[in-house]
Amino acid sequence: MAKKYIYFFGKGKAEGNAKMKDILGGKGANLAEMTNLGIPVPAGFTISTQMCTYYYKNNKKLPLEFFEEVKKYMRKIEEAMGKKFGSKDNPLLVSVRSGAAISMPGMMDTILNLGLNDTTIKGLIAQTNDERFVFDAYRRFIQMFSDVVLKIEKDKFEKIIEEKKKEKGVRLDVELGADDWRDITQKFKQLFKETMGYNFPQDVWKQLKMAILAVFESWNNPRAITYRNLNKIPHTLGTAVNVQAMVFGNMGPDSGTGVAFTRNPSTGEKKFYGEFLMNAQGEDVVAGIRTPQSIEELKKTMPKIYNQLYRIQKKLEKHFKDMQDLEFTIEKGTLYLLQTRTGKRTAQASVKIAVDMVKEGLITKEEAVKRVSPQSLDQLLHPTIDPSSKPIPVAKGLAASPGAAVGEVVFTAEEAIEEAEKGKEVILVRKETSPEDVGGMATSCGILTSTGGLTSHAAVVGRGMGKPCVVGCSEVIVNEEEGYFKVKDNLIKKGQIISIDGSTGEVFLEKVKLVEPKLSGEFAQLMKWADQIRKLGVRTNADTPYDAKIARDFGAEGIGLCRTEHMFFGKDRLPKMQRMILSESEEEKEKALKELLPLQREDFKGIFKVMKGFPVTIRLLDPPLHEFLPKTDEEIEQLSQKIGISPQKIKDTVSSLHEFNPMLGFRGCRLGIVYPEIIKMQAQAIFEAAAYFIKEEKIKIKPEVMVPLVGHVNEIIITKNYIDEVAREVSKKYKVKLNYSVGTMVEVPRAALTADEIAAYAEFFSFGTNDLTQMTFGFSRDDAGRFLKVYLENKLLPYDPFVSVDETGVGKLMEMAVTLGRKTRKNLKVGICGEQGGDPQSVRFCHRIGLDYVSCSPFRVPIARLAAAQAALEDKEIRKGKKRK
Amino acid sequence: MAKKYIYFFGKGKAEGNAKMKDILGGKGANLAEMTNLGIPVPAGFTISTQMCTYYYKNNKKLPLEFFEEVKKYMRKIEEAMGKKFGSKDNPLLVSVRSGAAISMPGMMDTILNLGLNDTTIKGLIAQTNDERFVFDAYRRFIQMFSDVVLKIEKDKFEKIIEEKKKEKGVRLDVELGADDWRDITQKFKQLFKETMGYNFPQDVWKQLKMAILAVFESWNNPRAITYRNLNKIPHTLGTAVNVQAMVFGNMGPDSGTGVAFTRNPSTGEKKFYGEFLMNAQGEDVVAGIRTPQSIEELKKTMPKIYNQLYRIQKKLEKHFKDMQDLEFTIEKGTLYLLQTRTGKRTAQASVKIAVDMVKEGLITKEEAVKRVSPQSLDQLLHPTIDPSSKPIPVAKGLAASPGAAVGEVVFTAEEAIEEAEKGKEVILVRKETSPEDVGGMATSCGILTSTGGLTSHAAVVGRGMGKPCVVGCSEVIVNEEEGYFKVKDNLIKKGQIISIDGSTGEVFLEKVKLVEPKLSGEFAQLMKWADQIRKLGVRTNADTPYDAKIARDFGAEGIGLCRTEHMFFGKDRLPKMQRMILSESEEEKEKALKELLPLQREDFKGIFKVMKGFPVTIRLLDPPLHEFLPKTDEEIEQLSQKIGISPQKIKDTVSSLHEFNPMLGFRGCRLGIVYPEIIKMQAQAIFEAAAYFIKEEKIKIKPEVMVPLVGHVNEIIITKNYIDEVAREVSKKYKVKLNYSVGTMVEVPRAALTADEIAAYAEFFSFGTNDLTQMTFGFSRDDAGRFLKVYLENKLLPYDPFVSVDETGVGKLMEMAVTLGRKTRKNLKVGICGEQGGDPQSVRFCHRIGLDYVSCSPFRVPIARLAAAQAALEDKEIRKGKKRK
Repeated sequence: MAKKYIYFFGKGKAEGNAKMKDILGGKGANLAEMTNLGIPVPAGFTISTQMCTYYYKNNKKLPLEFFEEVKKYMRKIEEAMGKKFGSKDNPLLVSVRSGAAISMPGMMDTILNLGLNDTTIKGLIAQTNDERFVFDAYRRFIQMFSDVVLKIEKDKFEKIIEEKKKEKGVRLDVELGADDWRDITQKFKQLFKETMGYNFPQDVWKQLKMAILAVFESWNNPRAITYRNLNKIPHTLGTAVNVQAMVFGNMGPDSGTGVAFTRNPSTGEKKFYGEFLMNAQGEDVVAGIRTPQSIEELKKTMPKIYNQLYRIQKKLEKHFKDMQDLEFTIEKGTLYLLQTRTGKRTAQASVKIAVDMVKEGLITKEEAVKRVSPQSLDQLLHPTIDPSSKPIPVAKGLAASPGAAVGEVVFTAEEAIEEAEKGKEVILVRKETSPEDVGGMATSCGILTSTGGLTSHAAVVGRGMGKPCVVGCSEVIVNEEEGYFKVKDNLIKKGQIISIDGSTGEVFLEKVKLVEPKLSGEFAQLMKWADQIRKLGVRTNADTPYDAKIARDFGAEGIGLCRTEHMFFGKDRLPKMQRMILSESEEEKEKALKELLPLQREDFKGIFKVMKGFPVTIRLLDPPLHEFLPKTDEEIEQLSQKIGISPQKIKDTVSSLHEFNPMLGFRGCRLGIVYPEIIKMQAQAIFEAAAYFIKEEKIKIKPEVMVPLVGHVNEIIITKNYIDEVAREVSKKYKVKLNYSVGTMVEVPRAALTADEIAAYAEFFSFGTNDLTQMTFGFSRDDAGRFLKVYLENKLLPYDPFVSVDETGVGKLMEMAVTLGRKTRKNLKVGICGEQGGDPQSVRFCHRIGLDYVSCSPFRVPIARLAAAQAALEDKEIRKGKKRK
Repeated sequence: MAKKYIYFFGKGKAEGNAKMKDILGGKGANLAEMTNLGIPVPAGFTISTQMCTYYYKNNKKLPLEFFEEVKKYMRKIEEAMGKKFGSKDNPLLVSVRSGAAISMPGMMDTILNLGLNDTTIKGLIAQTNDERFVFDAYRRFIQMFSDVVLKIEKDKFEKIIEEKKKEKGVRLDVELGADDWRDITQKFKQLFKETMGYNFPQDVWKQLKMAILAVFESWNNPRAITYRNLNKIPHTLGTAVNVQAMVFGNMGPDSGTGVAFTRNPSTGEKKFYGEFLMNAQGEDVVAGIRTPQSIEELKKTMPKIYNQLYRIQKKLEKHFKDMQDLEFTIEKGTLYLLQTRTGKRTAQASVKIAVDMVKEGLITKEEAVKRVSPQSLDQLLHPTIDPSSKPIPVAKGLAASPGAAVGEVVFTAEEAIEEAEKGKEVILVRKETSPEDVGGMATSCGILTSTGGLTSHAAVVGRGMGKPCVVGCSEVIVNEEEGYFKVKDNLIKKGQIISIDGSTGEVFLEKVKLVEPKLSGEFAQLMKWADQIRKLGVRTNADTPYDAKIARDFGAEGIGLCRTEHMFFGKDRLPKMQRMILSESEEEKEKALKELLPLQREDFKGIFKVMKGFPVTIRLLDPPLHEFLPKTDEEIEQLSQKIGISPQKIKDTVSSLHEFNPMLGFRGCRLGIVYPEIIKMQAQAIFEAAAYFIKEEKIKIKPEVMVPLVGHVNEIIITKNYIDEVAREVSKKYKVKLNYSVGTMVEVPRAALTADEIAAYAEFFSFGTNDLTQMTFGFSRDDAGRFLKVYLENKLLPYDPFVSVDETGVGKLMEMAVTLGRKTRKNLKVGICGEQGGDPQSVRFCHRIGLDYVSCSPFRVPIARLAAAQAALEDKEIRKGKKRK
């Protein structure tokens, strides 16, 4: 336990600074930094994250002397603010907030107005001469404290307010007077006692103690855990606690509160941007209960304050060299900055800001490349509404997160998850969202809320997830309980299809036509810088000329995985493939294969044409043959009629091909070893397609033939023999010199273990990390759901190994394979074509272990390019000793 | 190509010797050695195995000068024997035989009487004055040459002889005269021409050349390949060719031929043992066509020859220090030794001979331990007929290979394989067996033939395989075509059950009662020596007190794997287990587990009682839960009635537990992590059983709790936590100190890869090589049949990795696990409990990589003990530099 675990800030000086994020949390470090910069920040102190860690390590106990220390620091605040905690004359109120090293917006709990009780309100009333405000603050405190510390349902309190409003015949909170709030406060206290069995704590020190413990507790509430799981934040970091003097934005018409960004977080535009509410608390803005005004309005209302704020934001951005997200409060005409932090932004904004800042000379190109999260690029690549289709919107809300989405309406997070699991595209429509909804938001393809601003929960989370999102669309009247929403004269029920455009805020009651995204000039610039920096090649997994084309446009430098099995599922091919599988004699089999040959050859021609000049890795047939055969009696009957083989014979074959563990069964190169005619047909198609281009179009085509599921060197030897034999025949027949290579997937653990033997014959390796992960862990991806979820929730696994390469286990095999393989064949080309190939964390790993390229789906190509560049930069820093691995 | 590739022997001197097995083959080396020892051997020469290798390496071509060299050496034979090859006056005839470095009896082709043609027969007739013999020899030569060199069916020739016998009204070959054989020879030549389209070759040099090439070709005939696959003989060794002057045992009443052993190959008794036939060729003995006389008879018939032979065999055994198998021929009163080699023997004989020879001072204890094939012990451990049941035999044949067997009758090798694949126990009944039958013999549990002696094919192969075998049971009349056999008045059809006793030669038409084997004093002695030598511990895999008892009696030093799932399949347990799986609430689940607890506790008590003082490794529940649930509607209905849960609910659970790849699914420690109550119940049962013995019986019980399927360190951490928690509770409740350890199976590749992390928590490792092999290769054992067979046949894999540990791949992971594990935990105990734990080759590997023990099924414990001793000896020799690894 470090000796110092509380850090003061206030009166222009702080004990901490911006570099102490790890122990002060993001919020605490910034408060210290702002204080040191001379920014007007209410005084306070930060309890370090180490205290949270201590709390969990010591069976939820704190050091004996801890609360004595807290008291000492409270005295410092009292001194700085000239108020006294618990005083009936001049009471100090404080906020208690969580603040982890990595920002977790909306996830952690906050308590405001702490220090209010039946005694201190008197002092506050005397000081402010505003009974209405004080009782409003008191009831807010009771409500928040009850919710956050004691888990009493918020709704119970809201109901009391609603009843009061009904009683008074008013619609808005502001319409309620002092007496109303006093009465409400009384009812709140009653409710508290009824629920808890004891009175609302009147001892302000007890309030403080309970609040601090509640913050520590909140670190491990399920919402926080979910957020960390989703965002891969270590569960061991812990949160700091910030205790800070309260200032009030609801002290009358010369008070207010707001949030602001130094640049537009949605577009990246370089323009001071924000929202505020007069005579309100910060909660009102963030929760999106009232729709706030633009910051431009402040210029008109309080020009002096606006100018002060404008200068401060300039100073902060210059200081932090990144776009800042500010919270401010004006207390009776005095401006206080409550918080500044690196602002969340859309991918589009992220790219624009990074590129702009390079142009402005604020940061370097390398810094710009590092600034943009590769994962976030996903949202740039989302489709938008075809402008030529000109659909007519039924309503317009705030454009909170770009991209357009089409889906069936759902009204709860549970429905969203349920329908998404059925494979449906859904749009979550709610009044507002809350942290409980995060899971449902993640499975929706778009989010629409009727209330809330651009900094509301829905907007912030939607942007983080790259989900198209429209918020504050007040024309939409949502009835979540009954399962419908009304907009103008339309009543839309669950399951009906709507569309939203998160870039314009428009809502449509039809299925709009979507188009592929156009990428900005800044994007192209950033990618150019990334390409200059990265060492890893980036290829794509594509089975069709269409996909190959998209990937080329996204900058793919070749095809790393062209699966051939998909080619046999086409309407014209499947019956032929089925006849091949069902044939009883060699002749029948060869005949069926002969029919497949020209089709397969055309497939390859199509792909070679798009990829001209770039390498194409073609994987030979991989899946078990039963995947090509029908399952149900009805399908069998249909097939029987189509190809004239008796249903019984088909059934017999289907049942003889049945496998207990098809993953580990008769598939991959095993197929070709038992039925060499299949390999030979595929090789012939590949080489004849290549020969055509070499001869007729004078294009250098170098096919890379990839043998799947090799586990023993003899498998590649025998398969390569067949391929080489066919190559010689084609070469002779067409009188062309074929330039090709034969390599293998490394997806069976034994292949990695014996990579030195295999590399003697394989000219390249490509990691099939999907299967390699399945076999190394002994996890069937299809079946792992039952336990993998539990594993991830209980932190048994730090992350899903099917999303990011498991570096400790699977990664060790990969490193072995690279090392052993290159021991035998110095210039062995090694890539990855599993799904992890497009995952930024895995791309970094691939860079570290010396792969030549990664290959991923077309839409992830830019992500991989950026991640590869970041990996190269990280590597450089490690080598410079700046950063530890 | 070595310059010298032909080696002469004859006239008391040879160019080779016994140490040159690698290049002369076993047969050639021994012929040289015998010649050097002064044993009367017909002159000849050996073409080295290097020439065979050259032949296959050079696209089946031989060096240009090769046949010139052969001619030179033929001249030497002519000189030694005083005869001339191809001479019409004094013709030299030769045999051409294969001879590999490792004996492959009955597998390779042999040609006798080469050099006979229409001209040379004249000389031979003039010399022997026995036209009948010469035409018989000529027709034998034509028949054999046609079969071996040109693959003309034997049966076609046999038919001609049968017709002739019918025509003459005789039953035996010897009843045919010179004219008959001349006529037959003529018909053979006609048959040859009709089949081949050209005349039978008259040029003796052409005959010789074709025969030598045929021997080389025979090295790769399918039978030879199968034999090598079965016996793990490298396919690259190649065969030598022995060309040797013919001597004739069919030159009249003072001629004969026989085979002999220096000790009884069936029992090991130290007594000169053999069989001979007067006036016959060696083929007649080996093929079992005529039933030969005992060698004792020779003493009476030709005492001088017998004495000479007796002295020679004494000399040979003393020289070779091992039991010898001799072939001899008496040509007109002169004895020739044709061959000597280490004699094949039953396991019983092998043990007795080894122990006896130590007593005789011929060999050391270590040598004795090395002499006995561990695998062969299997046959010592075969059951015998319960003597108290006194079944009445229907017939008696020769006791060719010990052990009793009960099974359904089959008549062909194909049937044997077919039925065995259905899981049936079969006895193969044939007139005689031939190399084509080897596959079927291997899948039968016993063999019965109506003809043939103790050295017939069936007897030799049966012994080699450790299969109970009765031969020469002439009362049994077999009709293979019609699928029945007659014995006395009984007609037995395919599928009926019979029994045989290979130790007595008795045949029964009923299912006899079998009893466990009693082991000889020599066996106990040999095992004692083995135990003194070995370093590896030997444990057993046993789930019941019954199995544990057998294993203890066989010398197991503990239980290496006690599977607990079998305990849940008992009639009284299964419904409880099913209720546990089907329970919807925690309470129901706990209730069902509470009912299972006392049963499980009794299971462990039973095992601890038998194993007192020895370690017991108990594996927690491993299989997927669906294995405990019924599959068919009928079974579901029954269960529903029994436990009162609706059929629909059961069906739903069954379907929700369905897995695509159950091998990689929800099983092993994953079960216990999702349902900790299962682990806790098992741990409680284990510790309460241990507590009982510690407290009530004062016996030190140290249970080793083994967690299955661990792949990530967190899995062992969490599971060990539960186990430790229960141990503390039990310890407190019963007031005993529990001494236990918690370890893990290493069966998932990732466990081996991260063994350093896992060993921080696991106190022992046990390799589950079945699953480890499945996952490392990506082979599902249940499904691999379709390709693994092809892989083994085509030598893609040198041996079945489910039988012997794949040292290159799986073994590499094992080595890694041992090294990494002991890096973290120096005294980490490591064992193996997969089926390979009882395989001698794998035991050697486990010794080499430093395992502490192997664990195998009870009946394989002696095999493992012996193999472990041999591994220790081998290791010592390697360290001494005597032998290379």
